Amino acid sequence: MENITVTLLHNGSQTTVKSEKNAVLLSILQQAGVGEAAHSPCGGKGTCGKCKLRIVAGTCDTPTERELRFLTEDERKAGIRLACFTYALGDVTAALSDEAAQILSAFSGGGAIAPIVTRHYVVLPAPSLEDQRDDWTRLKDAIAMPDARCRPAVLCTLPYALRAENYAVTVTCAGNQVFSIASGKVATPLYGLAVDIGTTTVVMALVNLQTGEVADTESGLNRQAAFGGDVISRIQHAIEDTNGAALLREAIAEQLNDLAKALCARNGLTAADIPAITLVGNTVMAHLFLGLPTAEIARAPFIPVCNDTIKAPASSLGLHLHPEAIAIIASSVSAYVGGDITSGILASGLANEEALALFIDIGTNGEIALGNKNAIVSCSTAAGPAFEGGHIRCGTGGVAGAINSVHIENGTPIYTTIGGKPPIGLCGSGVLDVAAALLNEGILDETGYLESDDEEDDIAVFRLTDKVYFSAKDAREIQLAKAAVRAGIDTLLHELHTTEADVQTVYLAGGFGNYMDKDSAVRVGLIPAALRDKIVPLGNAAGSGAIRLLLDTAAEAALSDITAKTTYFELSANAFFQSAYVEQMMFPEE
Amino acid sequence: MENITVTLLHNGSQTTVKSEKNAVLLSILQQAGVGEAAHSPCGGKGTCGKCKLRIVAGTCDTPTERELRFLTEDERKAGIRLACFTYALGDVTAALSDEAAQILSAFSGGGAIAPIVTRHYVVLPAPSLEDQRDDWTRLKDAIAMPDARCRPAVLCTLPYALRAENYAVTVTCAGNQVFSIASGKVATPLYGLAVDIGTTTVVMALVNLQTGEVADTESGLNRQAAFGGDVISRIQHAIEDTNGAALLREAIAEQLNDLAKALCARNGLTAADIPAITLVGNTVMAHLFLGLPTAEIARAPFIPVCNDTIKAPASSLGLHLHPEAIAIIASSVSAYVGGDITSGILASGLANEEALALFIDIGTNGEIALGNKNAIVSCSTAAGPAFEGGHIRCGTGGVAGAINSVHIENGTPIYTTIGGKPPIGLCGSGVLDVAAALLNEGILDETGYLESDDEEDDIAVFRLTDKVYFSAKDAREIQLAKAAVRAGIDTLLHELHTTEADVQTVYLAGGFGNYMDKDSAVRVGLIPAALRDKIVPLGNAAGSGAIRLLLDTAAEAALSDITAKTTYFELSANAFFQSAYVEQMMFPEE
Repeated sequence: MENITVTLLHNGSQTTVKSEKNAVLLSILQQAGVGEAAHSPCGGKGTCGKCKLRIVAGTCDTPTERELRFLTEDERKAGIRLACFTYALGDVTAALSDEAAQILSAFSGGGAIAPIVTRHYVVLPAPSLEDQRDDWTRLKDAIAMPDARCRPAVLCTLPYALRAENYAVTVTCAGNQVFSIASGKVATPLYGLAVDIGTTTVVMALVNLQTGEVADTESGLNRQAAFGGDVISRIQHAIEDTNGAALLREAIAEQLNDLAKALCARNGLTAADIPAITLVGNTVMAHLFLGLPTAEIARAPFIPVCNDTIKAPASSLGLHLHPEAIAIIASSVSAYVGGDITSGILASGLANEEALALFIDIGTNGEIALGNKNAIVSCSTAAGPAFEGGHIRCGTGGVAGAINSVHIENGTPIYTTIGGKPPIGLCGSGVLDVAAALLNEGILDETGYLESDDEEDDIAVFRLTDKVYFSAKDAREIQLAKAAVRAGIDTLLHELHTTEADVQTVYLAGGFGNYMDKDSAVRVGLIPAALRDKIVPLGNAAGSGAIRLLLDTAAEAALSDITAKTTYFELSANAFFQSAYVEQMMFPEE
Repeated sequence: MENITVTLLHNGSQTTVKSEKNAVLLSILQQAGVGEAAHSPCGGKGTCGKCKLRIVAGTCDTPTERELRFLTEDERKAGIRLACFTYALGDVTAALSDEAAQILSAFSGGGAIAPIVTRHYVVLPAPSLEDQRDDWTRLKDAIAMPDARCRPAVLCTLPYALRAENYAVTVTCAGNQVFSIASGKVATPLYGLAVDIGTTTVVMALVNLQTGEVADTESGLNRQAAFGGDVISRIQHAIEDTNGAALLREAIAEQLNDLAKALCARNGLTAADIPAITLVGNTVMAHLFLGLPTAEIARAPFIPVCNDTIKAPASSLGLHLHPEAIAIIASSVSAYVGGDITSGILASGLANEEALALFIDIGTNGEIALGNKNAIVSCSTAAGPAFEGGHIRCGTGGVAGAINSVHIENGTPIYTTIGGKPPIGLCGSGVLDVAAALLNEGILDETGYLESDDEEDDIAVFRLTDKVYFSAKDAREIQLAKAAVRAGIDTLLHELHTTEADVQTVYLAGGFGNYMDKDSAVRVGLIPAALRDKIVPLGNAAGSGAIRLLLDTAAEAALSDITAKTTYFELSANAFFQSAYVEQMMFPEE
């Protein structure tokens, strides 16, 4: 039996799977544990049309008429297929469809990337009495960088490097900073690291700086969780424990070192070869990593130490990479609109467009931005963790066995679970779906009243399985969460003196945005109905932004530009928001 | 008896002397051991007119007619006096006259200095829900530096500094780099260090960055001398000893730390307060201090590792100053035209002038530059140490008892010694004077033949005292030295297709240039006769350049500009030089 390799590009990372030839892509991905990446509410029956992938490279079967019904003309031309219909006839590289477009827009034109670290192979003319240029000027002339700079510690190596192979050298530069000079031609690829420091999860991508490809990714739960699960409890730890801030800083730095080591080991590299790392995270994650005090973030008026992009030697931040490696930490807008949002906006392209667009990242906080290339307004709403399955009686994260899509047929709930595993609870998209379905069925009314005889602990519930149910209290959580996000949207529209009709695109960042059902989101009132067809899920937009900071020297300035033109609205002091919040607490009528 | 304070500004440093009121300046200076600074060949008899000083501040008596005969109209207007005629009626600050002009041109307009490190006292508006700017942006706005940068280690202190004294802080910046933030108003002055790393002597000046004044100086013999007296023997040590380069680097770094510590202790400071240090030295001194390999400097084709100005954290160079202190090491032109010359040219103003000027620094090597604001040519000639009293039978350095001026009256030598002490030998200016006097008397002819019956070790000598004499071999040394310098001058004139007549000024840098007799220099043929009246001694021009790098943010770029427009001529490969050298070996006829 012939084996093939299937590579899936997703969330700015890639997963490689060995498989038999002529297998269906969806089953290959499910076997590899990344089935949920190819969202398949119908469970692969070929009825929902949601498991769209873009075939980037490799040979697959020809799509049937039945498959083509689910695809627009544009999608067909772009190489989009449904994973459940597609047979891999050889090695295949596929990308999640929405994200594929995203990655393409971020790094359009593979040859045109301009990474922040570059390598130059040059052969210099040998010196003579007629040409007594110093070694450094000789090198600058050869690489055509008259304004190049070099630290003494690196200059020390220059005369030896030049003379070892007859003035042939490979020079590694970050902008105008030369930071290593090796004799002869260095053939090994040059890699950088892009990191998304989430409060919960830390994801690191190993990025080939010459091709722009994400070679590998590695992730883990943020080790700071040992000191507190959310940002506020970590800030409290930093304040109350004498050594708290240092321990938090060391925890994340060590985790990054370990992730880098693991990625390097797996790819035949050593961390000391890595010349650059870009990091994005919310304002608190950035502060804790940089060792900046966080006390003023937690209490009114919520003041960060520094919102600017920080560019510093990686070594000064406790990272064990190339001794001269640079680290870039993305700028934030305010205490609660951080570098994850600015880099997500960067990746979305919103800040380059004439048309008005919304950018929404729904997590415990719902961060929302509205704007275009001229100006952006932003806010952060305390949505609560309902859309992450938190504060929900039978809630769970996006793990195997989580019910991730629900609809009700003739009063009977029909659901899918992640990985097709036995149901263990409701994840964010499942919670959203069940609320929408109950509204459609009239079981839940617009005030949030759940009409049911079934009860758990004296609270009315709608049961999906023996053990998994949706309660009246869960409905309340959904109301609070969606009202916060929706009131945030309304407030920003109000602040820009505009309406939903002017919004051309709604970028949804993060996992929930990727997996939620658009109709359900509209049904519960999370997203205005008028915007339903303008939704573009971005996946891990923050991570894409981090990768972009590695691969595009112009991205750092673009990020600063985004930060500079983004106004933050503090909702705790905003009367319009307060009234919109109360108003949006109701579910919409059908 | 009333006491007064006399302050002498000399060689970019200052000496303070306590004295009785109504004393003669020259005697005050001689008592303080700085008598040689006010060059007085006549020994204070009021006949030579050479002990010129500029009275910068304070009250002196009115000059007599006898004194005024020695002063031009311009000199009188500029406050120039003769030290031997001038009585101090109260506290007086005086500057060596030529140097006073120099210092003034370097730092013209005390209020207009633009030091590389500045301090800003600002009171920021307190944050509120209506003004949620991060601390860093709030600070940048207050100091009106939108492009300011700050390392995370310093940002850490920001929130505490801001809130300790109600948002009043004193900010210290180097360019756009903020490197300390102290709460409240810091009243202590801000000082920087300027260093001349000579092969023989290291001089460090403590410079008030707010007033531009040199507050104090400290110097010592270069500790690298333990590894070799001259640059070549130090390079050999660096090459041949496994740890040689490291030992040389540590020797100078430790010496600089000790000098800084001594200066700070004496002035109520700690070295950790010093935010900036500028260093100038010849190419080898700069390389050894930076830890750069020197092997290629010593052998043809004489290639330095790096001629560029280096700006690096002082801590990275082993200096224990403020943790964020910056160090600037002056750029060089070639292996043997170093940062001492470029900074000397900077201090001279040559590179800003339309008129053509020569810059000459006579030591073991005679470094010569010729040019103006458009272009500069330069070379380095192996003059040998004759003008430093070296390779001379009865030679000595410029120490107390050295014969520093000589003339012959009726066949009898008349001389002065440094400090008026009993004669112990001939220093550079004495050697020059005796050669010139012997030529005038016809005792020495233009071929270098010394007509004398007196002999020492079978060599004809001219005796000044029982033990101090000038030999025929010494005449040969003078011939070799002056021919090298003079041929260098001729070669540069030739390369620029110009003649002596076009040269408007001859800047003489270094101690020898300050103390030598112009007529003697012309008589032996060191300086062309046509240039005699165009000589301007600069004193420690390299040190002045270092101070300027501290006090003028534009100086670094000016230095780079000088380096860029200076062409180096390697004389070992220059046919014109070889023939000029042979030609200039003869002394001029009367």
